[in-house]
Amino acid sequence: MQVHLDEVETRIKQQAAEFDPAVEGYVTYAIGGQGKRLRPLVALLSGGATGQIRDAHLNLAVVLELIHVATLVHDDIMDEAERRRGQATVNARWGNALSVLVGDCLFAQALNLSTTFDNGDISRSIAQAAREVCSGEIIQTQRRFDLHLGIDDYLRILEMKTGSLFAVAAELGAVINEVPEETARTLKRFGMKIGTAYQIYDDCLDIAGNESIIGKTLGTDLRKGKLTLPVLMLLKSASASDREQYCRFIVEGKSEEMTDVLRNDAAGAPLTAAIDAGTSLIVEAQRDLDVLKPGVHAEALGQLCDALRELLDQLHD
Amino acid sequence: MQVHLDEVETRIKQQAAEFDPAVEGYVTYAIGGQGKRLRPLVALLSGGATGQIRDAHLNLAVVLELIHVATLVHDDIMDEAERRRGQATVNARWGNALSVLVGDCLFAQALNLSTTFDNGDISRSIAQAAREVCSGEIIQTQRRFDLHLGIDDYLRILEMKTGSLFAVAAELGAVINEVPEETARTLKRFGMKIGTAYQIYDDCLDIAGNESIIGKTLGTDLRKGKLTLPVLMLLKSASASDREQYCRFIVEGKSEEMTDVLRNDAAGAPLTAAIDAGTSLIVEAQRDLDVLKPGVHAEALGQLCDALRELLDQLHD
Repeated sequence: MQVHLDEVETRIKQQAAEFDPAVEGYVTYAIGGQGKRLRPLVALLSGGATGQIRDAHLNLAVVLELIHVATLVHDDIMDEAERRRGQATVNARWGNALSVLVGDCLFAQALNLSTTFDNGDISRSIAQAAREVCSGEIIQTQRRFDLHLGIDDYLRILEMKTGSLFAVAAELGAVINEVPEETARTLKRFGMKIGTAYQIYDDCLDIAGNESIIGKTLGTDLRKGKLTLPVLMLLKSASASDREQYCRFIVEGKSEEMTDVLRNDAAGAPLTAAIDAGTSLIVEAQRDLDVLKPGVHAEALGQLCDALRELLDQLHD
Repeated sequence: MQVHLDEVETRIKQQAAEFDPAVEGYVTYAIGGQGKRLRPLVALLSGGATGQIRDAHLNLAVVLELIHVATLVHDDIMDEAERRRGQATVNARWGNALSVLVGDCLFAQALNLSTTFDNGDISRSIAQAAREVCSGEIIQTQRRFDLHLGIDDYLRILEMKTGSLFAVAAELGAVINEVPEETARTLKRFGMKIGTAYQIYDDCLDIAGNESIIGKTLGTDLRKGKLTLPVLMLLKSASASDREQYCRFIVEGKSEEMTDVLRNDAAGAPLTAAIDAGTSLIVEAQRDLDVLKPGVHAEALGQLCDALRELLDQLHD
């Protein structure tokens, strides 16, 4: 099976060369590192599974990754994160001012490349997804330390900030091949689910992961007051007196104490419950794949789901 | 003469409504205030002067203003500015994290609206201008406190960070009317010159202006190590010993001392020289307007130049 991820990688790297030489180095650095290129992968596989992987799919993959990297660069400023994708973050290396601008450059370049699609609906969908991502981040920022955040609100934030880019990756991969609308809609739902599940995984990783293996700064969510699914599930299942103590930990920024509780609370097992919620979403997503004709690319989308489930499973250990 | 700036204002305000209700308020705030809407004005007048002001001109005007406001929101983070357009900056009101995201939202919405042009070249030119703006800002950030910054380097930065949006405003206003290429190119040069001159004005204002009248935080350039034209001209014309002292002021962050020198240095008069450089650019730009057929809109572009010259002149007092 040809997926052309290497060609996407080459094109991602080429984006840097379109900038002024004084700027190129920062862009090269930001788009480098050990990114998993999940959104490009979904776009390409969706293309392969609904017809042919065309030049437009490669550009779609690059645009989505550029938008994603732009948001990562800006996230790392807000989280004051030191490491990302196995290297120092842009803000750790060159400060916040420059990081704001590097993120903007990546956005501008994504905008630039997204003008190459013949079908205006494609760039429109991408732009709307980018708006969803930023809006989701704003709502999450607004609701930091908000102990009344409900699980539904939280899941809606994840759909916006992470689900939406995966959703357009899967949807537009199909739209480029001019499939029936219903197929594209189903794939959009598929993308939304795996994107949301992936963010649940990422949120659990922030609590349960090992920094030196993962290659990025962990524990930032709690420090920054971001209440993620394991925390919300802990608060929901705790006794009144425990809940009161946990709320105090959160508000007073005692993130290590909270992490200990979450890692060791055998009774409520909120971390397990959160991981299971992610797994359920992936199981649902796999059912959406029935819309596809059998083939290597459809199968690879199923395998991607398996791999995400495996990642979630490993968090149990 | 109908310029439809009020319709542009309405459309700018409508952009906020396209966001999630939780986000709308921030966007409304960011695009509010007493903005001069210069880029929209240039786009509309260029449209009127080369044919008709069409719906696409109104959208062009809105897109350019959204990009501009996005960069202002991000600039104010980097400058730690407190006031802008007569109101508290987004960062002063809601902090840096939220401001990064509000700027991103505005970029995303600009991207969104720029997909409405039938002619893909238009959105491409806008995207390239946005990239120039961010790249110019990066280079300026890189070269803070760089006492070897040349006047040519500085002018190139201004062309990128401010000239380019004015340039596409004038150019695309004409392109939408399908004028001969040479006319569009001349108008692009016109826009580049008035944009650059306007930034020279803005830079001089940061030194010579009155904060309570202007409605924004002044003196930030020197504090942040941004060496603007008056400073560069002072360093160039100063005696070796004076130069050494000025360099010390700059590096040690003694921005008030530097401002005093710049405001009062009667001999070298670098502030006057900088103002005159801005005026010369506008005089050149006015000559470019000869490419236009006489009419009310062409005349209004000339009057805009007169108004910019008047602004520069007032700095002499």
